[in-house]
Amino acid sequence: MDDVNDDLLKRVAVVLVRARNPNNIGAVARAMHDFGFSDLRVVNDYEVSLETAKSAVDASAVVANARVFGSVAEAVADCTLVAGTTAVGERALDHPLHALVEAAVLVKAECASEHGRVALLFGSEKTGLSNDELSHCNFLMTIPMYEHEDVRHPSMNLGQAAAVCLYELVRREGAHAGAGVREAARAGDVERVSALLGEVLEETGYRRKYAHATEEEVRRLVVRMELSAADVPVWMGILRQMLWKVRGGAQE
Amino acid sequence: MDDVNDDLLKRVAVVLVRARNPNNIGAVARAMHDFGFSDLRVVNDYEVSLETAKSAVDASAVVANARVFGSVAEAVADCTLVAGTTAVGERALDHPLHALVEAAVLVKAECASEHGRVALLFGSEKTGLSNDELSHCNFLMTIPMYEHEDVRHPSMNLGQAAAVCLYELVRREGAHAGAGVREAARAGDVERVSALLGEVLEETGYRRKYAHATEEEVRRLVVRMELSAADVPVWMGILRQMLWKVRGGAQE
Repeated sequence: MDDVNDDLLKRVAVVLVRARNPNNIGAVARAMHDFGFSDLRVVNDYEVSLETAKSAVDASAVVANARVFGSVAEAVADCTLVAGTTAVGERALDHPLHALVEAAVLVKAECASEHGRVALLFGSEKTGLSNDELSHCNFLMTIPMYEHEDVRHPSMNLGQAAAVCLYELVRREGAHAGAGVREAARAGDVERVSALLGEVLEETGYRRKYAHATEEEVRRLVVRMELSAADVPVWMGILRQMLWKVRGGAQE
Repeated sequence: MDDVNDDLLKRVAVVLVRARNPNNIGAVARAMHDFGFSDLRVVNDYEVSLETAKSAVDASAVVANARVFGSVAEAVADCTLVAGTTAVGERALDHPLHALVEAAVLVKAECASEHGRVALLFGSEKTGLSNDELSHCNFLMTIPMYEHEDVRHPSMNLGQAAAVCLYELVRREGAHAGAGVREAARAGDVERVSALLGEVLEETGYRRKYAHATEEEVRRLVVRMELSAADVPVWMGILRQMLWKVRGGAQE
């Protein structure tokens, strides 16, 4: 996972607001370390024991570099986007609410912009984020959980919630178990695949059959494949072979 | 997240092998509860303190229904697929290794099959799964982590690893916090697209040309498309039309 977008890892700050349990701070730091993030910020109006948190396996560097702020405003001052995490039950209705899958796309887009810097806010274990703290957020994000009939306010353990959120941010980049990292295909390559698929659809008669298979529709279909750079030559090869065969390639 | 595939939630068992810390068992149970899973199995050759684990917030029902087994063999006896979790560093080379994104597709496919039942094995906090325990696994799955230069054997906290794995299993189904979200294709549909693409590759001669286009490779290629439910009939239509044409369909 070496070439996960460096900007993403450097430009996302995890902000823990009024976290009470140093073990939880340690767990969040460990998740950050596991997925390659390093900017941990803690907002507390009293001294938190980062010493205890430092004992978190492997994550001592993250905790050692953590910064403590007296307010959310100070903690997110340099951020261009602030996303608050919330259980759906406690959501403030005047904020846009995105499921994590969608929120991650917005966070990644912001990190890819020139001066983008994102804060992910996590509230205290007991009470989540207060209305005042929420007022700093551009939007809220939630990890969709199972709705048990007998549980009114579902909430996740802080360390687990952070692990899941950070995983979602890097999951595609980390999708290769072995060698060959999945670098995203360039727009020009997507266009070439799209054009070739269009030719195939033309030659097979699909386009005449389905009037909706316009150039635009085919491009969108290919865009939705979220091709990696490595898969571009594979699909080009498959489509070229199809075209060759459809155009009457000799029997082998 | 009401419409998560019920089979998935009922047919996946989490098996903790030699977990030493009752707090970790509790954390795993909590993650299961959060995402709607309930079948927890514990393998230990000594009495584990499930009492302590029961204190896990919200997850008491999961722990109360947990079953204790004396061996991995007994714990997975009713399962049709056994997936072992592992850090890449400790992998046994003779097992197929899938990144979590891919492994989740295989797990979901198994759960969608008629009598499919899947065990997700997690090893002890210190040593992971032993070779003997690994021998019960059909494949290994790993959560891709950032490769720090100074860390030889990355490993995640047990409760966080379980949370991330279970989240990956349900993440797409839970993507609908807002409107307009793409519902993920079901595993069976992915399999149908994959099979049909395989037929096309056979008929066009691609498979003879490229020896690497095995069934497994084609499945992975299709899995990486992360098809939405809406795009499944589109691709099925395109591939059917190709097949029809390649097999000598009449000129229109």
